[in-house]
This record gives sequence, C-alpha cells and structure tokens, in this order.
Amino acid sequence: MFELHKSTSLGRRGVLYTAHGAIQSPFFMPVGTCGAMKGLTHQDLLDLGAQILLCNTYHLHLQPGETVVEEAGGIHDFIGWQKPVLTDSGGFQVFSLKAISKITEDGVHFQSHLNGDALFLGPEESIKIQHALGADIIMCFDHCPPSTAPRAEQEAAVGRTVRWAKECKRVHQELGSHALLFGIVQGGLEKDLRETCAREIVSIGFDGYAIGGLAVGETEEEMYRILDVVCPLLPEDKPRYLMGVGRIDQMKTAIGKGIDMFDCVLPMREARHGTIYLSSGEKIRIVNAEYRHDHSAIDPESPSPLGRLHKKSYLHHLLRANERLGETIACSQNLGITLEMYRNLRSELENSKS
Amino acid sequence: MFELHKSTSLGRRGVLYTAHGAIQSPFFMPVGTCGAMKGLTHQDLLDLGAQILLCNTYHLHLQPGETVVEEAGGIHDFIGWQKPVLTDSGGFQVFSLKAISKITEDGVHFQSHLNGDALFLGPEESIKIQHALGADIIMCFDHCPPSTAPRAEQEAAVGRTVRWAKECKRVHQELGSHALLFGIVQGGLEKDLRETCAREIVSIGFDGYAIGGLAVGETEEEMYRILDVVCPLLPEDKPRYLMGVGRIDQMKTAIGKGIDMFDCVLPMREARHGTIYLSSGEKIRIVNAEYRHDHSAIDPESPSPLGRLHKKSYLHHLLRANERLGETIACSQNLGITLEMYRNLRSELENSKS
Repeated sequence: MFELHKSTSLGRRGVLYTAHGAIQSPFFMPVGTCGAMKGLTHQDLLDLGAQILLCNTYHLHLQPGETVVEEAGGIHDFIGWQKPVLTDSGGFQVFSLKAISKITEDGVHFQSHLNGDALFLGPEESIKIQHALGADIIMCFDHCPPSTAPRAEQEAAVGRTVRWAKECKRVHQELGSHALLFGIVQGGLEKDLRETCAREIVSIGFDGYAIGGLAVGETEEEMYRILDVVCPLLPEDKPRYLMGVGRIDQMKTAIGKGIDMFDCVLPMREARHGTIYLSSGEKIRIVNAEYRHDHSAIDPESPSPLGRLHKKSYLHHLLRANERLGETIACSQNLGITLEMYRNLRSELENSKS
Repeated sequence: MFELHKSTSLGRRGVLYTAHGAIQSPFFMPVGTCGAMKGLTHQDLLDLGAQILLCNTYHLHLQPGETVVEEAGGIHDFIGWQKPVLTDSGGFQVFSLKAISKITEDGVHFQSHLNGDALFLGPEESIKIQHALGADIIMCFDHCPPSTAPRAEQEAAVGRTVRWAKECKRVHQELGSHALLFGIVQGGLEKDLRETCAREIVSIGFDGYAIGGLAVGETEEEMYRILDVVCPLLPEDKPRYLMGVGRIDQMKTAIGKGIDMFDCVLPMREARHGTIYLSSGEKIRIVNAEYRHDHSAIDPESPSPLGRLHKKSYLHHLLRANERLGETIACSQNLGITLEMYRNLRSELENSKS
C-alpha cells in the first residue's frame, strides 16, 4: 500500500508499505545485482540509510538459481537482509544480451552469458521466478527496446508489454503472495505510444507503475518530455518508479515531475572509476594527478564515515593501485551522498507548502 | 621496548611497546600491501582484534612513493590507521622479482613491475624509505635466497645480510627516529650458516630479531629444525618474528619454539579462493558443490559478525559469482579465526605454569 502524504511542485512525499517494512518516499534503490553490492556490506548500506535493495532476476536465475534462494527461505534470508527487496523482471537484461536468439509472443529465447545454455524467459517464467525469489516488490516482464529504436519496433514492444502485463498479473494472482506487482510503461520517445501504453497498463491495475526504456541513449529533454506525458496518466495513489535513472540532478527533476522511486548503478560505477560526489554538490575526478598530493579529507561533511576519515591522496593512491578498499571508500561516499540527498529532499518536501 | 612476562613450553607471553601503542604478544600481523587490506576496512581489522598492520616498502615505494606518504604525515595519517605499523625492507619483493638485473655488494638493481623503470634498492635506500614512511617497526634490508638454494648462495647471502644489517643500523641511527629496527637471520637450511648469521646479527644489536627465508619451499620439519637452531641464540628480552608463516598449526608450533610475531597473506588468500576457517578448527572448501544447498550459518560461533550472519550457501554463491562481498565475508571470517586463536593462546599462556 502507498500513502501519499503530500504532493507539491517539488515532488511527492509518501510511504510505501511492504511485507518487510515501510519505505519513505521518494527513495533510491541501490542495485545489488546478484544479491550483494560491490564493495559494501549490508550493514554499510543500512548505516548509509538505504531502505531497500534491488536485485536482478536474470542474474539470480542463472546463479545460484531461484530454487536455492527459495529453499533458503527467500531472498531476504538467503542474503541476510531484512529490509525490503525489489526484483526486476529480467527483461531489461535479456533484451540487452547480444545472444538473443528469438523474440516470440511468449517471451525471449536467449543464451546464458555465463555458459551459453539455451534459456527462455517470458511473463509467466519471470513472475514464477520472482515469486520463488520472494521479493517485496516484483516487476512485470516487459519488452524494452532502446528508446531510440524505430517507431514500428516501439509499437510492437508496447503491444507485447501490455499483453505480457495481463499475463503477469494473472500468474501473480494465481500464485498468490504479499508481493506488490508493478506494471511498466514502454513506448520509447513516441508520445502517443507512451499514452496508449500508460492507459492500458493503468487499466489492468497494479500496485505501482514504472516508466521503462528511458535513460538509454535519448537526450535529457526527450526523457523529461516523456515523463510529462506519462506521469499525469498514472494514478495519484500509487508509487511511480523511473527505471535506471541515477544522476542526482536528473532524479531531482524527475521527482519534481511526480516520480517516487529510482534505481541505478551510476553512483557506484562512477565511484569505482574515480568520480567522487561531495557534500558541496561538486563531483571530483579523484584519480587525477592533482589529488596525488592533496592530503585533505575526502569530504569532511560526508554522511560516510570513510569519506570523513580518509584523505583524498589515500583514495587517489588506492584507486590507482587497484586496491579494493578504494572501491569501498568511493562507493560508500557516493552512495552516502545520494541517500543523503533523498533524506534532505524528503524533509524539504515535508516542510514545503502543498 | 619488549617486556617478556612469561616463557613456557607453550610459548612466550609479552608486550611490545611502540610509538603507536602496545602490542600483546604473541601476535599476528595482517598484510596490507599498499596500505590497505583486500576486502576489509581498517575498522573491520580493529573490530576483529588486529593490533598492528604490515605494509610493504617495495609496493609503497613504487606507488604512491614515500614522498607522498611522508608529506601526508607518515603512513598512519596517510592511511588513517592509528595503531602500530610494521614495514618490511622490500628485500623479499625485489629478490622475488623476475626482473632483477644485478645484485651487487651495495644492493639490488631491478625493474619496477609496474612500468619497467630501472630502480635500485640497498640497505641505505631501504632504511631511508622506511624512515620516510614512518612505521613503528622497520626491518633491515637482507639478502633472501630461496631456503632450498645451494649452500654457496646461502653463504654469500649471509655475508651480505650481515654487512647490510650493520649498514642499516648505521643509517637508522644517523637518521634518528622512534622506530624499532629489527635484524634478520638468513642462512637457508644450513645449520652452521644460520648459527653464524644469528650470532653476527645479535652482536650488532637490534630491537627485535626476525627469521627470514623460511616457508618458501622447504618441508615443515626443515623449518622447525632451523627454528630450533636459531631461537636459542636470540636474546630472551627481544621479540622474535618468523616471517611469512601463517598456517595456524605451524604458528602454534613456532610459538612453542619461542616465536612472538608472524605475518602472512595465507588466511586472506585462502579466503579469496574459498577455503574457510571455522571456530571448530575445521577448514571447509565453501566453493564445493556440497555447500550450494547448505543454508546453515557459515560459523555460528564466529568472532566475525559476517561469519555469524551469513549462510554457507550465500557465501558459496557470492564466491562462485565473483562478487566482492564474498571476499569480504571470507576474509573477515578467516582473519577473525586467526586473531581469535591468538587471543585464546595469550590467555592460555597467562594461565599456564611457567
């Protein structure tokens, strides 16, 4: 269930209730692909203020397999994380694979990137796997072409996405669970296709609505234009999730347009490659030569204890030397800054005029 | 300064005082090659009970260079670790390099493994670098051939090691510092060379004595035989350091023969490759198929919170999936067990009859 407490021009402030607790919205979901973050422990995530972890169905299906996760008592017990978990549908991953053999009306034939095994994933399979994994929020299996794909492809994708969404809901209801099922709106950059898709998905009825197929090559303006088309068509009383967007400025703008949830690997990927977020709002390239002799703290005001403790020169050294502690410090810093932005924004929303 | 509180057939119980605090002996030194452990933060090390960190002069000299460390205020401030630090001499690394060009009476000409630069390291250079790094315990630059090298090579190495030890002490005294300087006994598996070397090194006079050139290919019996030759020749009132030995059973035996200090990458290397130490004393190969479905805790009695929290099946999955959290959990577990063995042994020594 979603409680919308306030809706202002700055954004929406609410609470999303799940089987593993309430999540204050708007919120950011760190991505723990195989059930773990790179460089951070679960306790680090909790300490930095993460409210939920996103795991990838495609990766968990391949390794260790949902049977192992299910017999361990579900994803929370398997990975030792008692806060909410969202699993994606696996669609984005299989559609991104080079080794897709065939897309049919039932789903996607593809080859495992691990061992080349011939595999198949469709709406029924995806929902069954996600039920076995036991996440709190699960996603419909959708067809997601690149946002810049031609109109004919987007049209076909929207058709499949809607048919698959009905199938997902049917399977979800048959299996029964406390999981919240989210529908996904596709349609690329085609205004009318986005509208059609949004209306169809909303008419099926889901616990939340995601906007997929963005942040994959289009311009920022094109992305915002699509949000302006889709958001007004989504019900006020359900959470809205913009998939794959993680740039702080873009998330803020999207929140202003009515989005509640985000996930992205960007803060972590930038961290690993040496782009460090600071409390000041600045980003610095810590691997640049200028930081070799900069012995000041990475970020004295950081929400991350590692960012406060360690020197820029040390982080520069560790990343240059390919030391894993460098990744840990950088990830802790960037995730800390990202999650703090959300805490601040939630307070701001609470204090702002409706 | 070293205080020997007790000496029994089980081992010696003492305290080693350094500029960054006292260390209860016997003790184990985790190896943070470039000033960081793989997979663990400094706080993790403290929580697991580490009393001191070993850093490698060779690696720090190459990257970031001792000038950077010195201008940051020394190794402790640079890496953000306020407990004692020991630096090795760099000798073991340069003698292990394939790219050694020439060994002269002054030191070793070699090429950087990072960029092929022609470099030189000798006793004077090593001590100067270690002074710049600012460790609490520093090591003489020694010539360390494999323990199994022919007698002529061992003889030459002992000669150099003794001459270089004198040079190291001279440079150390000229530079002046609070660092404790340790001498190193070489001599391979040749009883008389070990005796000669031990007597010579002791007559020069150091703050502690290390036994080098072992655990590099000889049998366990050969190693113990050398300890039986060397230990009785070392002064009772100085700490004794067996370099590079990290197997728990071997460390216990060596402690029984009068050794106080150890360093080794073994617990961490075994962890990363899936060999997990348990409180029971057992070692398990967590990457083996049998653990795929084993949903019991890794080690319910573990000194590591991660070892208590997580399931064997999850660690199996993470290491199989090459996820870094797997390395972190495994390292925390193996280091936790190693350090707990020392805590238990120190209590045992305190309670044992002299």
